[in-house]
Amino acid sequence: MSDVSAVLAKIDSNLPESLARLFAFLAIPSISTDSAYRTECRRAAEWASAQLGSIGFEARVADTTGHPMVVAHRRPTGATRHVLFYGHYDVQPPDPLGLWQTPPFEARMEDGPRGKRIVARGSSDDKGQLLTFIEAARAWIETAGELPVAVTVLLEGEEESGSPSLKPFFDANKNELKADLALVCDTTMWDAATPAVTTRLRGLVGEEITVSTATRDLHSGMYGGPALNPIKVLANLISALHSADGRVAVPGFYDGVEELPDAIAAQWRGLGFDEAGFLGEAGLTAAAGETGRSVLEKIWARPTCEINGIFGGYTGEGFKTVIPAQASVKISFRLVGKQDPLAIRAAFREFLTERLPEGAKLDFHEHGASPALELSADSPALALAAAGLRDEWGKDPILMGSGGSIPIVGAFKRELGMDTLLIGFALDDDRIHSPNEKYELTSFHRGTRSWARILARLAEWR
Amino acid sequence: MSDVSAVLAKIDSNLPESLARLFAFLAIPSISTDSAYRTECRRAAEWASAQLGSIGFEARVADTTGHPMVVAHRRPTGATRHVLFYGHYDVQPPDPLGLWQTPPFEARMEDGPRGKRIVARGSSDDKGQLLTFIEAARAWIETAGELPVAVTVLLEGEEESGSPSLKPFFDANKNELKADLALVCDTTMWDAATPAVTTRLRGLVGEEITVSTATRDLHSGMYGGPALNPIKVLANLISALHSADGRVAVPGFYDGVEELPDAIAAQWRGLGFDEAGFLGEAGLTAAAGETGRSVLEKIWARPTCEINGIFGGYTGEGFKTVIPAQASVKISFRLVGKQDPLAIRAAFREFLTERLPEGAKLDFHEHGASPALELSADSPALALAAAGLRDEWGKDPILMGSGGSIPIVGAFKRELGMDTLLIGFALDDDRIHSPNEKYELTSFHRGTRSWARILARLAEWR
Repeated sequence: MSDVSAVLAKIDSNLPESLARLFAFLAIPSISTDSAYRTECRRAAEWASAQLGSIGFEARVADTTGHPMVVAHRRPTGATRHVLFYGHYDVQPPDPLGLWQTPPFEARMEDGPRGKRIVARGSSDDKGQLLTFIEAARAWIETAGELPVAVTVLLEGEEESGSPSLKPFFDANKNELKADLALVCDTTMWDAATPAVTTRLRGLVGEEITVSTATRDLHSGMYGGPALNPIKVLANLISALHSADGRVAVPGFYDGVEELPDAIAAQWRGLGFDEAGFLGEAGLTAAAGETGRSVLEKIWARPTCEINGIFGGYTGEGFKTVIPAQASVKISFRLVGKQDPLAIRAAFREFLTERLPEGAKLDFHEHGASPALELSADSPALALAAAGLRDEWGKDPILMGSGGSIPIVGAFKRELGMDTLLIGFALDDDRIHSPNEKYELTSFHRGTRSWARILARLAEWR
Repeated sequence: MSDVSAVLAKIDSNLPESLARLFAFLAIPSISTDSAYRTECRRAAEWASAQLGSIGFEARVADTTGHPMVVAHRRPTGATRHVLFYGHYDVQPPDPLGLWQTPPFEARMEDGPRGKRIVARGSSDDKGQLLTFIEAARAWIETAGELPVAVTVLLEGEEESGSPSLKPFFDANKNELKADLALVCDTTMWDAATPAVTTRLRGLVGEEITVSTATRDLHSGMYGGPALNPIKVLANLISALHSADGRVAVPGFYDGVEELPDAIAAQWRGLGFDEAGFLGEAGLTAAAGETGRSVLEKIWARPTCEINGIFGGYTGEGFKTVIPAQASVKISFRLVGKQDPLAIRAAFREFLTERLPEGAKLDFHEHGASPALELSADSPALALAAAGLRDEWGKDPILMGSGGSIPIVGAFKRELGMDTLLIGFALDDDRIHSPNEKYELTSFHRGTRSWARILARLAEWR
């Protein structure tokens, strides 16, 4: 096994070719939430599988009832440890399209305050991030002829739409996917100079609700007064979801939510987090949500209920005096601690149903459910990965929380006993899910170098 | 002057040609609310102007800053009376397109429970209705060589988008448009066998409100908790607009609203209106709105606040865990009695502004404002028109109210002292503003015959 420094040198000299591969990957509009892009999702899977095949992985595209999986293995003779790397090749829809400065699927390099950065949908979430791992593996294989640990790669194409096929696929292929440890590259650094391992993830419950009152849209002059307005009904229901102190009003919602331990609360206070700066970067002028809690606590350790989208009636240019037949809303809950996603879904539906006025009908459609997750601070794999990050960045990683949700991580732990290390190189201002998403060139380059070092460290795991 | 019976016979024998003209008119997608259809609106105006020219009207298409007007005159020598006929050649957008059984701008004849009917966007509102008048004029001219009264026709192309150009055009051309009486064909009959004159019209205030909280859409995991959600803010505002008894909660909203006189209340009760049937035809299973009032009273004599459209965040297929930067709603108020539209707009805006939480911004955009209107029951022109309708239908017309709004009618009265007779042949189930809009063939045919008789009667007006 060669020294890691040769691998790092290879990563440095390979950077132009690595970027060319990333740009090709970003050119595929693999939008999983929109069935019009079904073929593009498959193209992205095939592209990733071919990349892994080209560096000696035994790789395949596996069909599901939704978008396909990519599964790839490379098991060096004599490797003592085996890691499973998970990522997703699908991306968020680019809308609103009009706010992009350049086409979302034509990646470009631009100068930013921290140097060059890559602008495209998926540059950060998750194509750029997952390629840091594959490029690190490539450099190991091209330099040392082999990986320092056995590696299985699992890439899905439905992460942005609730991962409906992932759990069934995982259940049907557990033996093939089992490893000592899972690695995920879909999170952020603490800041541009400070690496992080995310040890807390919020859970997620997604729901879509439609209120129907009539069998067709009605003229608001001819029916206005006696006709029940479904947008009004929906507004009343949404309005009831929170109480005045910002807490979620659904009964039992806070069951399983614990107050932050004093030690962790003190550690987070010590980070010197700039609340106004964080909010201000997004144009937010005041902190909302639960009263009496810090912004970091709200994001990393408190549950929420968010309205993600609403639509009903005439939404085009101008005006249409219509009373619509129905109105819909997309709502998600972020969970922490031991909150039970299915109990919350049931309580939420009951909460709405109880408040429904006569003459209105509710339809529910689910969009995924997963519990929150927390990694033990004394995990040996965590210590090794932290050492690898320190080697690259010259300082210890912050052990932080994340407001996001990666449902499969729960299944890894629950069903295979695998811990997961969430190590990402994205930054808070990457505009993921928004127009002009970007990924710093340093995130991509030093992220790749970080994985090369972490793989070396994990070979020491006894 | 020939006997009206020859005119009626001409209308009967001309019916196939009249229908062919209607179908050609309906084929023009003159959607005024969508700027993509600007050219089509002009085509519709030119089509109508050419029709009037072909029967000897001095007709022109007049530019405005919006869609053009059609103005046409025919002033017979010796005619003692002069009427102004107003209609609109623009139509509502056809969405949701998927609910149309056939393309909305390819008119077709289908069999319905009352005989044949014409299905297309605009068949009833207002192309079919306004053509009944023009076809009656055509039959008079082709039979008697002249009209029994002088006629000015004014057609606008922005009725479905708040008529922004109508008032300025009217103000600039008052002398040309002045007549003894205005006629409008944009209302309904009482039922398929009973004609009606609408003597009460509700007013209208249209508003579009946008709530903004951030400068870009945010990831609901990374920002969920401290980020103010504009959909939630909007839902709270909408929810506050009504109190539990169904009344509008904006202070001063009911200023100028009077209780229905006992005599009128008794007359309306005597109509035997089938509330459950009326609501049930639209799929409504319960009457909403102000408690303790009948459905007819709510529509004809009470003001409302309706939510016409709402949109914000991700509204496509699937799910997107986003906190949007903004959310918008289209709201209209229907007014009665002496309610002041401008005072209500101001009170509404203040009501919302006062309730806006820290960190949110409101933008208002207006979509028209007009007061309610009521015609005196002892008008001589009303008596003559009623006689004409009785001649055709064999019974007296019902003097009814309408929940809809025709703002220019207020200006006719206020500024030229002209009363307006609102006589239409649409039916409540015509699905105007909805998919599969239709107009009964009998509405079209006997509507044309009705106007021929009414014109004859109005010549007797001394």
